[in-house]
Amino acid sequence: MFSLQTEIKILEKVKLKNPVLIEGLPGIGNVGRVAAGYLVSELKMKKFAELYSNHFLPLVILHDASVAQLLKCEFYYYRSKSRDIIILTGDTQSISPEGHYEICEKILEFSEKLGVKEIITLGGFAEGRQIDEPRVIGAVNDKSLIKKYEKYGIDFGKDHPVGTIVGASGLLLGLGRLRGIDGACLMGETYGLPVMTDPKAADRVIHVITKILGIKVDLSKLEKIIKEMEGKMKQTEKIHKRILEQIPKQSKGEDVRYIG
Amino acid sequence: MFSLQTEIKILEKVKLKNPVLIEGLPGIGNVGRVAAGYLVSELKMKKFAELYSNHFLPLVILHDASVAQLLKCEFYYYRSKSRDIIILTGDTQSISPEGHYEICEKILEFSEKLGVKEIITLGGFAEGRQIDEPRVIGAVNDKSLIKKYEKYGIDFGKDHPVGTIVGASGLLLGLGRLRGIDGACLMGETYGLPVMTDPKAADRVIHVITKILGIKVDLSKLEKIIKEMEGKMKQTEKIHKRILEQIPKQSKGEDVRYIG
Amino acid sequence: MFSLQTEIKILEKVKLKNPVLIEGLPGIGNVGRVAAGYLVSELKMKKFAELYSNHFLPLVILHDASVAQLLKCEFYYYRSKSRDIIILTGDTQSISPEGHYEICEKILEFSEKLGVKEIITLGGFAEGRQIDEPRVIGAVNDKSLIKKYEKYGIDFGKDHPVGTIVGASGLLLGLGRLRGIDGACLMGETYGLPVMTDPKAADRVIHVITKILGIKVDLSKLEKIIKEMEGKMKQTEKIHKRILEQIPKQSKGEDVRYIG
Amino acid sequence: MFSLQTEIKILEKVKLKNPVLIEGLPGIGNVGRVAAGYLVSELKMKKFAELYSNHFLPLVILHDASVAQLLKCEFYYYRSKSRDIIILTGDTQSISPEGHYEICEKILEFSEKLGVKEIITLGGFAEGRQIDEPRVIGAVNDKSLIKKYEKYGIDFGKDHPVGTIVGASGLLLGLGRLRGIDGACLMGETYGLPVMTDPKAADRVIHVITKILGIKVDLSKLEKIIKEMEGKMKQTEKIHKRILEQIPKQSKGEDVRYIG
Repeated sequence: MFSLQTEIKILEKVKLKNPVLIEGLPGIGNVGRVAAGYLVSELKMKKFAELYSNHFLPLVILHDASVAQLLKCEFYYYRSKSRDIIILTGDTQSISPEGHYEICEKILEFSEKLGVKEIITLGGFAEGRQIDEPRVIGAVNDKSLIKKYEKYGIDFGKDHPVGTIVGASGLLLGLGRLRGIDGACLMGETYGLPVMTDPKAADRVIHVITKILGIKVDLSKLEKIIKEMEGKMKQTEKIHKRILEQIPKQSKGEDVRYIG
Repeated sequence: MFSLQTEIKILEKVKLKNPVLIEGLPGIGNVGRVAAGYLVSELKMKKFAELYSNHFLPLVILHDASVAQLLKCEFYYYRSKSRDIIILTGDTQSISPEGHYEICEKILEFSEKLGVKEIITLGGFAEGRQIDEPRVIGAVNDKSLIKKYEKYGIDFGKDHPVGTIVGASGLLLGLGRLRGIDGACLMGETYGLPVMTDPKAADRVIHVITKILGIKVDLSKLEKIIKEMEGKMKQTEKIHKRILEQIPKQSKGEDVRYIG
Repeated sequence: MFSLQTEIKILEKVKLKNPVLIEGLPGIGNVGRVAAGYLVSELKMKKFAELYSNHFLPLVILHDASVAQLLKCEFYYYRSKSRDIIILTGDTQSISPEGHYEICEKILEFSEKLGVKEIITLGGFAEGRQIDEPRVIGAVNDKSLIKKYEKYGIDFGKDHPVGTIVGASGLLLGLGRLRGIDGACLMGETYGLPVMTDPKAADRVIHVITKILGIKVDLSKLEKIIKEMEGKMKQTEKIHKRILEQIPKQSKGEDVRYIG
Repeated sequence: MFSLQTEIKILEKVKLKNPVLIEGLPGIGNVGRVAAGYLVSELKMKKFAELYSNHFLPLVILHDASVAQLLKCEFYYYRSKSRDIIILTGDTQSISPEGHYEICEKILEFSEKLGVKEIITLGGFAEGRQIDEPRVIGAVNDKSLIKKYEKYGIDFGKDHPVGTIVGASGLLLGLGRLRGIDGACLMGETYGLPVMTDPKAADRVIHVITKILGIKVDLSKLEKIIKEMEGKMKQTEKIHKRILEQIPKQSKGEDVRYIG
C-alpha cells in the first residue's frame, strides 16, 4: 500500500570488484560519520545510490538555506587496485526499532546484489569519561574473523566494557551473519556526548580502516574537513540527539553502552 | 488486511488543466490552513475528493453539535484561465512519523494522476517572538526554482533561521522531488503558538500565493472569514496541539524550528 | 505475514433479519459496556462470534482464578419479532490509534455481511462533575437521522459540550458512513471517572435503547447484574484505565471530552 | 517488503515424537529462563532452531567480548522414552505489544508443524514481598486441564492474586487455545525484582515441570548453573529490565500483576 517504505534509488549502475562495505552513520561522537565522510572526501568517491525511508523523521532539511531535501543515506564507491570500496553514510538512522531492522535488511540486500562479502562498520564507544589515548575496540560477527583484523591494532580483548552495539553498526553485523556476510565493527573510544564530534576518536578509526583497506589518506586535513562538514552536521545534530535520546540511557561504569 | 489505511474518496471525477497543488494543513499559527481556507472560500472552490487515514487520531468530530464525521483532508479545485488550481486542506495531519510519509505519498500519487507538476505548500514559521512585519520565507525542492519564485517577494536569503520543515509542507517537497514534481514552500513568520491563529502571517502568505497564481482575492474579508472558520478550528485545535506536542520542542534562537 | 492481526472467529453461522448492531465496549463510567451487558443478560442473547486482535494488550486474563483467555470482543444475537439485534461488547478496545481504525473496519465488514444497515453505539460522556439527572446525548452520522431518533428523549441540542467521540463508539459512526451504514451514538452523562461504573447513566442509556429497539427489559435488576459483572470487570478495569490514560486528558469545562 | 519480520531459522530438521513445548523466556525473577536453561543444560539438549524478529531491540550482544550476535530465541529438543521435549528459551521478548502477538503466533505455527499438542510455559509471579516457601501457581487454557495438572502440587486455587499473565507465557496459552493446543503456565512465587534471579522460585518450578515430564534432573547443581548463566544474563538483564519497565507497573496487593 505504501509507495515509500524503505527504498534505494540508484543514481548510477555500477559493477564493483569484490567490494567491501564501510558504514559510518550518525552516532556517539559522530565518529562513524566523520570517518566515513573523510574517506568520501579524501578519495573523491562518487555517489551512486540513495536510501530513503519512512522510518526517518518526517521532515526535510534545508540545504543552502532554501533547498529542501529528504533525510537520506548515501552510497559512494571507489575503485581501488585490489578491491573496490563502498561507503554508506548519511543524515540519520531509523527513529523506530523495527525501522532499524528493516533499513539494515534493505542495505544488506542491496549490498549482496553488489557482491559485498565483507562489511566494516564504524562508530564511537561512549566511555563516559575523558579519553586521552583512544583505543579502537573491535567486534566481529564470527569468531574466526578476529585473527584477520587483530593485526591492525584493534582491541578485541576482554578488558573493555562494550556489551552491546545499538543501531546499524551492530545490526549490519548480526543480520549480515544470517546472509553469510563477514562483518567487523571498529569503535573509537570517546567521551560520549552524542552531538559533539570527537576528531581524535575519528582519527584513530580512520587510521585503522585505511590500514585494513590498504589505502593512504592525508589525515592532516581531518580538522579542516570536520570544519567543512560541521555546517551540514549542525543542521542534523539535533535530529541525532533526539534519536539517541530514545535509546535508554546507560549510566557511567556499566557494561552496556551505546555505540553509534 | 486493512480496508482503511490511507484512502482517497473521489467525490467528482475532474479533468484539470495543468493544475498546481496548494497545500495548507493545520500547523503553527494555523497559517497554512487559514490561507488555504481563505482561497477555498473566496474562489468558491468545489470539493472533489477526501482523504481518510488510520494515521489520524481515532475519533470523530461533531459538526453542528451532533453530526459525527471522521477526521479528513479535502481536495478542492478551481478552474482559472491560465491553469487550474487544487487546494488541499483539512482537519489534521498524521499522528505518527510513518503516517506522514504514507499520507504524503498518497497525496502525490493522486496529484500525479491529476497532472500536477508543481506544488506550493503553505505554513507558518515559528520565530518564537513577536513579529511586526512578517516576511514570507521560501524553500524549494530544486535550486533552479528560486529564480522562478523570488520575484514574488519571497525571502530565499541565508539570514533566516529555518533549518528543517516538518510534516506535509516539507515532505510534499522532498517526496515530490523523487517524482519529478517541482515544489515550493511559503512560510509566514509568526510568533509560533501552535493553536493561535495568526491572521497577519496568513495575510502575507495569501498575498504572495495569489500573486504567484495570478488571481485576485479580497483580503479585507480575511478577519471575517477567520472568524467563521474559528468554530470549526476550535473543535480541532486541541487535536493539532497534541500533534504538535509530539514534535520535539525547539527552544528559541535555535536554527531548527517547526513549520506547520 | 501475521496469522493474527484482527480476526473474527465465527462460533455459529447465523442468518439475521434486518439486524441492528448495538456496540457497548469499555469506556468512561463503563456506561456502554454495562448497558450492552445488561441487554445480553436480560434478553438471554447467544454469542455467535469473537474478535481477537494484536492491537489489544499482550496478555491473558485468568477467569475463575486459573483459566487463561485472550482479550476479546464478543458478538451476541437476539431474534425479535420486527428485526434482529446484534450486541457487540467485550474486554477491551485497541491500545493503538491505528488499531482502533483497523478493528472498527473489521467490525463493519463483518456487520455488512450480516446485513447490518444501522448501528447504535453506547457510551458515557464525562461531564467532570456530579450529574443528578443524566441526559442521554446523541450524535448521528447523517443529519437526516436526527429526526428518527430525537423522539426517544435524546438530546441533540447545541447546549451540550460534546466535541469529539473517541474510539469505537465514534469510529463505527464515521467509518460506517463511508459504507452507507446509518449510525447513532447514545451517550449517558456521567462524572467521568474511567473505571467507576455509573449505574445511573447506564440506566438512562438502557431506557432509551430499549425504546428504540421496541423491547422491554426489567431495569430493576440492573444493580444486581452490575454486581455480577463486577468481578469480571474488576479484572480488566486496570487495563481500561491504562488505555484511557493514553488518550490525552481534557480538563473540565472544555468543549472536547472523551466518550467511551 | 521486509525480509526480516519474525523468522525461524532451522538448524536441524527434526522429527519428534508427540513433543511437548516448554517455554522459559526472560521475565520476573528470571524464573522461566533459569528453569528452561537448567533443563537444556542438565538434559544436554540440542539446539535445532532460532527465532529472530524486528520486534526485538535493535542491537547485537557481544559474546566473549567481541563476537556480535542478534538477539534471538532458541529451540532445543530432547528425545525421551515416552515423548520428546522441546524447550524454547532466549535473550528477550518482544518490545512492542503487536510483536508479542506476532512472535507467539510464529512459535505456535512452528510448534504445530512439529506436532506439538501441549505447551507448558514457565514464569515467575511477583508477590511484591519476601516469599519463604514459594508456591507454584498454575493456569490452564481449558478448565478440563486442571485435573491433569493439579496432582503435581500446582496451586489452581482462588486464594492467589494472579489476574493476568503478560507476554509469551500468557499469549502462548491464549493463542494456543485458538489452535486447539492445550496449555498450562507454571508460575513460581517470587519477590518480583525484574532482573534479580530467584533460584528458590526456579527450583520449585523445575521440581514441578520435571515431575510432569517424568524426568529426573540433579537440582543440586542449580546454583552452579545459575552462576554459569549469570555472565550471559548480565549482558541482557538491562534489556529485560527496560522491556519490563514498559509494562505498566502494578502496586503491591493488587489482583493484577506481571508474570514473566
